[in-house]
Amino acid sequence: MFSGKVVVAQGGGPTAVINQSMVGAVLESRKFRNVELVYGASHGLRGIVDEDFLDLTQETTHNLEMVAETPSSALGSTRDKPDLKYCQEIFKVLKAHKVGYFFYIGGNDSSDTVRIVSEEARRAEYGLRCVHIPKTIDNDLMVNDHTPGYPSAARFVAQSFMGANLDNRALPGVYIAVVMGRHAGFLTAASALGKKFPDDGPHLIYLPERVFDVDKFVEQVREYYTKHGRCVVAVSEGIHDSTGQPIITQLAEQVERDDHGNVQLSGTGALADLLVDLVKKRTGIKRVRGDTLGYLQRSFVGCVSDVDQREAREVGEKAVQFAMWEDRDGSVTIHRTGFYSVDYQFTELTEVAGKTRTMPDEFIAANGHDVTDAFLMYLRPLLGRGMPDAYRLRRNFVPKVLNRG
Amino acid sequence: MFSGKVVVAQGGGPTAVINQSMVGAVLESRKFRNVELVYGASHGLRGIVDEDFLDLTQETTHNLEMVAETPSSALGSTRDKPDLKYCQEIFKVLKAHKVGYFFYIGGNDSSDTVRIVSEEARRAEYGLRCVHIPKTIDNDLMVNDHTPGYPSAARFVAQSFMGANLDNRALPGVYIAVVMGRHAGFLTAASALGKKFPDDGPHLIYLPERVFDVDKFVEQVREYYTKHGRCVVAVSEGIHDSTGQPIITQLAEQVERDDHGNVQLSGTGALADLLVDLVKKRTGIKRVRGDTLGYLQRSFVGCVSDVDQREAREVGEKAVQFAMWEDRDGSVTIHRTGFYSVDYQFTELTEVAGKTRTMPDEFIAANGHDVTDAFLMYLRPLLGRGMPDAYRLRRNFVPKVLNRG
Repeated sequence: MFSGKVVVAQGGGPTAVINQSMVGAVLESRKFRNVELVYGASHGLRGIVDEDFLDLTQETTHNLEMVAETPSSALGSTRDKPDLKYCQEIFKVLKAHKVGYFFYIGGNDSSDTVRIVSEEARRAEYGLRCVHIPKTIDNDLMVNDHTPGYPSAARFVAQSFMGANLDNRALPGVYIAVVMGRHAGFLTAASALGKKFPDDGPHLIYLPERVFDVDKFVEQVREYYTKHGRCVVAVSEGIHDSTGQPIITQLAEQVERDDHGNVQLSGTGALADLLVDLVKKRTGIKRVRGDTLGYLQRSFVGCVSDVDQREAREVGEKAVQFAMWEDRDGSVTIHRTGFYSVDYQFTELTEVAGKTRTMPDEFIAANGHDVTDAFLMYLRPLLGRGMPDAYRLRRNFVPKVLNRG
Repeated sequence: MFSGKVVVAQGGGPTAVINQSMVGAVLESRKFRNVELVYGASHGLRGIVDEDFLDLTQETTHNLEMVAETPSSALGSTRDKPDLKYCQEIFKVLKAHKVGYFFYIGGNDSSDTVRIVSEEARRAEYGLRCVHIPKTIDNDLMVNDHTPGYPSAARFVAQSFMGANLDNRALPGVYIAVVMGRHAGFLTAASALGKKFPDDGPHLIYLPERVFDVDKFVEQVREYYTKHGRCVVAVSEGIHDSTGQPIITQLAEQVERDDHGNVQLSGTGALADLLVDLVKKRTGIKRVRGDTLGYLQRSFVGCVSDVDQREAREVGEKAVQFAMWEDRDGSVTIHRTGFYSVDYQFTELTEVAGKTRTMPDEFIAANGHDVTDAFLMYLRPLLGRGMPDAYRLRRNFVPKVLNRG
């Protein structure tokens, strides 16, 4: 075991349970005698480079427990995507502060950062344990059965569509809602978990794992609506044509790109609006409405899976235990061992770092616009206890008096 | 007392607790010996005209209780806005089915329908009691302290902004979210109930009760952002200029209008996107994001105020009691009698029908872009038990080692 300080940092988009992992790592670290102090980096890697550390050893356990139940990175996050030089800078600061353990909670980009920092430390023959703690609402990390943050976001999406379906049933029409997930459709697929009765929506689910054909989409909506008088549609923000071009670039006149050249998909209602216009114009259906679930999916307070909370806490704790007892760098990964139970393993960083997992074929219906029972079985236990349930009045029709015909 | 059948119908936009009122009216009706059968009209007034009734006397109490806890009009709703002829048609059907009691759950348009049907019955000297049961997420009914449906929608808005504020704190920038409410700002104002610490957002709140000046708005966002490094903004969909023109018509090239000539404000993310573009272009701030809370505000399953549930149930029950014991037509209204308690009165339909209540001046801050403590005191008890709470890490800063300057 090394001795020295511990640094915990949070990266990328916040989740509902990311603070569980942070608190798990902090409280577990404080049990080890070789840990001098536990620091939290303010706003992720940026805070390390700028030496903005909070001393979490001076924080009460009680307040840490309260923070654990609060969504969104309590330490602050960053969208900085570090290159080699940036990683070297990180290493320099960690060394200057006599840090022996670096825990970074984040997605696949974050695990790649951990990998580079780990290699820098090895090259410099400096005793630093670097561990990646998984989190992402997209559920797109390799090796993992699922990723902390996803179950709670999935629950939000399921509850949203459960309500949207009830609303659409009361006031029929076409309803289209856009869900986050650039490459992986796990979150959009979660919309199916709000279904109870056979005619419940979403009736059409479009995932980024399949090519999106605008004409086919319009026809499928028209067909469903004509037959059933209403139609609820779940669409991934990442839908694209056969060349990989995002559909939004086909439909919109202007699109915005981020620093990495990616088309901006979140933080705008454009895709939903464009699809709504398209359906209106091409089908002539009058009541067509669109929503973009937006940042609420990852930030809404008061919609969390207890399974997600527990696992997020455990990956934080396990990260510290693996770093101490296995004495190597790696990524904590989640593996399903029953219906429903999980175990944690310590995986090589290179197996997770910078890679993207998408939905396997067995989770996607053959028709390309629905999910399979295998997916429902996969996701249901992750949503946790107390999922709301929807009930209906029974159809005891009264005989007509005036319009007997 | 009249004898005959009871008809219950639900109108307008669904709410999280509208079925509580329906079930309250149904179960209370079934206690009266002069009530022969209890019918539910399928899809509101449209179901009456088409004679689409469900016999709720054949429904189990257990299932009614389950439906009561399910959001969105279980009987179905309609956007039909009846004229005199339509109301006469309603009356004709009610008479043919020997209906003695008509209970209509809805907003101000619905209360106006009840008023017209009531007048028709009187003119025809037909024994029909007509009662309006209040519901609207906009909270814009006259006479009432507040309206069932509003507290749950307000809670959703408060929890959304509580989360959006945490997200914005983790990844700073400008965040603008658009909230429902064409003329009344009560729902947008509810965004302030997610605040805990003095620097929590929303930092700017724009209500339809005040004139929206585009230039001032941009300046206020720029100023707040420059000073604090981030800015969370709540905007009502109904914001308008000094001539009453919706801001969306100023900013957008194309707007859609409904059958009543109203500009479409809901079911589109356009306003948020336009405000985001405006702030980006005029201030040069890079991270500017927008959301439109959309239909989730009224349909999300799993975010409900227990106070709202209880009151929605009671207005349904009281409607039946008033109809039976007071032997006149009217609207059930809610009146605050303590901190916190309410009582119900039976108000003349003409006092509620077709009128719109907006936020009183005492609830709006003098600066025009915030709410007052009086509003916080007004709304807080309505949100009910178990409101989530947000916690922060204490700022125990670590001295810098490298960048001592």
